[in-house]
Order: sequence, then structure tokens, then C-alpha cells
Amino acid sequence: MSDIPNPADTPEEHKERMAKTKAVRDAEVRSKTIRRGVIVVHTGDGKGKSTAGFGVVLRAAGHGQKVAIVQFIKGTWKTGEGKLLGTLPGVTHVVSGNGFTWNTQDKAQDIAASQAGWTRARAFIEAGEHDVVVLDELNLSLSYGYLDIDEVVGVLRDKPEHMSIVLTGRRAPDEIIAVADTVTEHTLVKHAYASGIRARKGVEF
Amino acid sequence: MSDIPNPADTPEEHKERMAKTKAVRDAEVRSKTIRRGVIVVHTGDGKGKSTAGFGVVLRAAGHGQKVAIVQFIKGTWKTGEGKLLGTLPGVTHVVSGNGFTWNTQDKAQDIAASQAGWTRARAFIEAGEHDVVVLDELNLSLSYGYLDIDEVVGVLRDKPEHMSIVLTGRRAPDEIIAVADTVTEHTLVKHAYASGIRARKGVEF
Repeated sequence: MSDIPNPADTPEEHKERMAKTKAVRDAEVRSKTIRRGVIVVHTGDGKGKSTAGFGVVLRAAGHGQKVAIVQFIKGTWKTGEGKLLGTLPGVTHVVSGNGFTWNTQDKAQDIAASQAGWTRARAFIEAGEHDVVVLDELNLSLSYGYLDIDEVVGVLRDKPEHMSIVLTGRRAPDEIIAVADTVTEHTLVKHAYASGIRARKGVEF
Repeated sequence: MSDIPNPADTPEEHKERMAKTKAVRDAEVRSKTIRRGVIVVHTGDGKGKSTAGFGVVLRAAGHGQKVAIVQFIKGTWKTGEGKLLGTLPGVTHVVSGNGFTWNTQDKAQDIAASQAGWTRARAFIEAGEHDVVVLDELNLSLSYGYLDIDEVVGVLRDKPEHMSIVLTGRRAPDEIIAVADTVTEHTLVKHAYASGIRARKGVEF
């Protein structure tokens, strides 16, 4: 018997199916006994990696938790999240980087910006004062070789136990996938941009 | 020549590669001439579908846009987003539904809750007063057959031109994928839960 509601079920059959599902789910929840912060990765070419990170900021701040978000490789245009993230209670928002690499065209400057961001991020992680630290587009800085992957993995592995860390960005290196607890690949099924539609304010930026 | 920064490039080679990339990207941006709101779908078994929806709320509200979010099939526990979404400027937050289907075990009640949520959502869409409408977990209500798919697709197809709509949830029906402009499949690579780690407050709820 599947645990998914079946439209063909009578109310009684539905109740029976769902009661069995509940028993299974409750037992499953009870079997999860490890309580610690997790390392979460959102990667892939699809949409919603950074926005999922912002959603976690909102969610954690809503619980009264302390959150730090460091944005790597961000554009110079005004983003919606940039205006609100820092105003949420308990949220520290750091922007590092001067735009996409093809805008700056300056390798040394991009590397310096990535490393400045990482210095802030590392300090947040090692201080242990935050419940959640979001590292937006860190994966991309790593894939460009702008940061030392062994150093980053070491800091993630030694993170304070209570702390959760969210990493976003395309091309997450294998070493990051290995150290993470939860990894989601965002797969592009289709994109409005390919149909000639401009990036939409409030949705894409 | 790839448009991705190559760590082996000298600063001069990097500048040249990125200048070419910028020319391509700028031409690409200019070629996108259609300006309208988009229909965005986040589906699949991976994490970050709802949180991507919350991130869009934050992003749009940050631009001073009017946003409505309707949450279908939500638990009765207190979520982080539930505490903050309604406090953001310009954001209307509606919760419809009484928990997962295996908690209510009451098919008629679940259908009534889904339909009540859809009535609110449809009113938001047809009134046209919001820039972005987020329908969290609507896909799941549709996959259960709790709502009329033809009615939902018709309302989405006739949405006001300026409005963007974000639908989240597993098992998005084919009809929803067809009407959407942008679709992301969230693929589960690994999940902390499978390692015996409890769902983490601030991250998963």
C-alpha cells in the first residue's frame, strides 16, 4: 500500500492508508536520534540555489536564531535580497565581490574579493556565535580555484556542532559534496530566458 | 575558449577570456526583449523547493513589490518562515491546510483545506494587485487530485501579464510543467535524515 493519498480511496480507505503512513513516519522520526547542525549544499545549473539559501535565512531568523550570510561573486546591480537580508532580526549580511568575473575582468581583484569573503566566513564559523551561516556562491569561487579547497573543507569539517552551514552555487567540488550532510542538485528543466524573456526583477534578482 | 575562468590563465589571458565572455553575455541579454511576469516551478524530491519560494518572497519584497504567499498542506508545528513572512513589507501570508495528509487522516478535510487555499490563491491572481504570488506545495495538492487541474492551469494561463507566480512541491503534474516558463527539478543527492540526523530547526522547518 503506497503512502501517497489515492484519489480513488473512499474516506475510510484514505483514513486507513494514512494511519499506516503515520505509524511508519512516526517510527522513522523516532529512529533519527542524532541532533546536530548540518552542512547543506545547493548546486547544479537549475534555478533556486541562492533563493533557497535566502529562504533558510528567513526560516532561521523566524525562530530567533542568529544567522550570517556571506555573498560571494555578486553583481553590482541592486538585488531585492540585498535590501532586506540585513534588516531581518539577528541576521548579519556581508557582500564580498564586485560582480561576475566577466564584468570585473580582473583576476587578482576577483581572487582578493573571494578571499576577503572567505576570511569573514571562516571567522563566523570559528567564532561559533551563529546558528546558521549561509555561503552564497562559495561553490563557484572554489571551482575557479580562487580559494584553497583543503582549507575550506577543514573549516567545514571542524565547524561547531550546533551550527548549520548552507553552501550554494554551481559546480560544487567533489570534496564539498563529500563533507556535506545534505546535497541537492538543481536540474534545469526549462528556463524563461531561453524563450527570450528578460530576467524579472523580484524573481531572478 | 571556454567562458569559465581558468585558474591557469595569466591575468592578461584572464582579462581577454572574460572580455569575450562579457561581449557574448551582453549580446545575449540584449536579445531577450520580452518583458513579462513568469511562471516558475520548483519540483522533485530534493530539498530547497519551499525555501526557494520563501527566498523569492524576500527578494521581491526587498524591491518594494507586493507579494502574496499561500501555503498548502502545512504542518501544525511552528515554522520559522511562518513567524516572519507576514511581517515583511508588502507581503500577505495565508496558511491553508491542517498538516500532512497522514496527520489529518481525513480526506474530506484535506480536500476542503486545499480548495479553500486555492480559492484565496485564485482571488489573488485574478485581482492582479500583487507582483508575485507564491503557491507553496500546490503541486502536491494537484497530484493528489484535490483540485481541478484544468481550472488551475486556466487561471495560470490567464494570469495578469505583469505578475509572476511560483509553484512549489513534489510531483508537479505535466500540465503544470507545460504552462510554466521556468522549471527546476530538485534532485536528492544525499540527505542528513538518511544518516539518522533529526530535522534541524531553522534549516528544515
